[in-house]
Amino acid sequence: MSKSGLFITFEGPEGAGKTTAIEWVQEALKREGMPVIVTREPGGIAIAERIREVILDPVSTEMDGRTEALLYAAARRQHLIEKVMPALQEGRIVLCDRFIDSSLAYQGHARGIGIQQILAINEFAIEGMMPDLTLLFDLPPEIGLARIAENKEREQNRLDKEKLPFHQLVRNGYQQVAAMYPERIKTIDASQTASSVAETALQLIKKQLESDRE
Amino acid sequence: MSKSGLFITFEGPEGAGKTTAIEWVQEALKREGMPVIVTREPGGIAIAERIREVILDPVSTEMDGRTEALLYAAARRQHLIEKVMPALQEGRIVLCDRFIDSSLAYQGHARGIGIQQILAINEFAIEGMMPDLTLLFDLPPEIGLARIAENKEREQNRLDKEKLPFHQLVRNGYQQVAAMYPERIKTIDASQTASSVAETALQLIKKQLESDRE
Repeated sequence: MSKSGLFITFEGPEGAGKTTAIEWVQEALKREGMPVIVTREPGGIAIAERIREVILDPVSTEMDGRTEALLYAAARRQHLIEKVMPALQEGRIVLCDRFIDSSLAYQGHARGIGIQQILAINEFAIEGMMPDLTLLFDLPPEIGLARIAENKEREQNRLDKEKLPFHQLVRNGYQQVAAMYPERIKTIDASQTASSVAETALQLIKKQLESDRE
Repeated sequence: MSKSGLFITFEGPEGAGKTTAIEWVQEALKREGMPVIVTREPGGIAIAERIREVILDPVSTEMDGRTEALLYAAARRQHLIEKVMPALQEGRIVLCDRFIDSSLAYQGHARGIGIQQILAINEFAIEGMMPDLTLLFDLPPEIGLARIAENKEREQNRLDKEKLPFHQLVRNGYQQVAAMYPERIKTIDASQTASSVAETALQLIKKQLESDRE
């Protein structure tokens, strides 16, 4: 697979300000006339949506953690093929809310399957299409959880309600993944204000765009 | 994962006599009072059935080959966890119609994804639970296809209608996989009569049961 655009992923826990930052970056790049799209898995891709339905549908028996990991990798593959790759081939900047590193941190580390094991099936799924740049929104889980609790408009999902030790494991998982890919993953201190975090994200992306032009 | 039963898989193309052989073996072992169950993926496992629905459901866009391979691996995992493993832990003989080698032969070799690549995601899925014995029903594709065409009662499925070169690739794929696992995979000449093939399968399984007792 080859491409000419720029593939940027946003990673980190809920409550870290990813959504605000993505909107901020999207608006700023659009103002400069840059071709940018925002997406997240399953991203309206029919097959990927169907796979997500299987993951989220409560059935009579429990879904095994490895079954779930394979399903996430399958949905990722289809979303990448149908939505991300065509946009990159048209030269667009793709801002993607969560990608491979979420699986490595949550399933690989926090759920205990193993980062290398989850990496193996995701390498099969993405076939070398790693992001050009990944922004990791890092903050103490206490702060992220407090922000979620304060935000009345936002419905809490299952993961929000996991206990603090799980969120600490997720943070540790992300930190390990960041250490594995120091060139690709840039960590942002997400304990700052939302606008400060969003601006930092924008500056990192602009720097990447400049280095791409050179 | 640990077990005490015997896990036997049946592999080969349609028209090779697998179904007849499985019934024959099941009846023979039952007559000897052995605890035997017959299964095939998705095997009535709710989550695995849901995954198969996604694979088989025609939607507006085409499913990528790697997406499909990940979904097969996910369904395999759940069927293994919910149906095969519990039976083995109860000491049963599990006769399973198709398992990992089908993916290696069809998707890995015939569809061109690569046997080692398909093996990687399936190793993640089965977590070391390889069959104790695999019977590979080998025959020239012309014979298998002719048998299917003759069998009026049997509805032809999509794979039956693939062209001969594809079926030749499947056979080559199975032969490569058999060479990778000479201890586990025993090849049966399936061009013989159905009863002769079934009897050969039974004798190979009895031999395995005897060596297990030693």
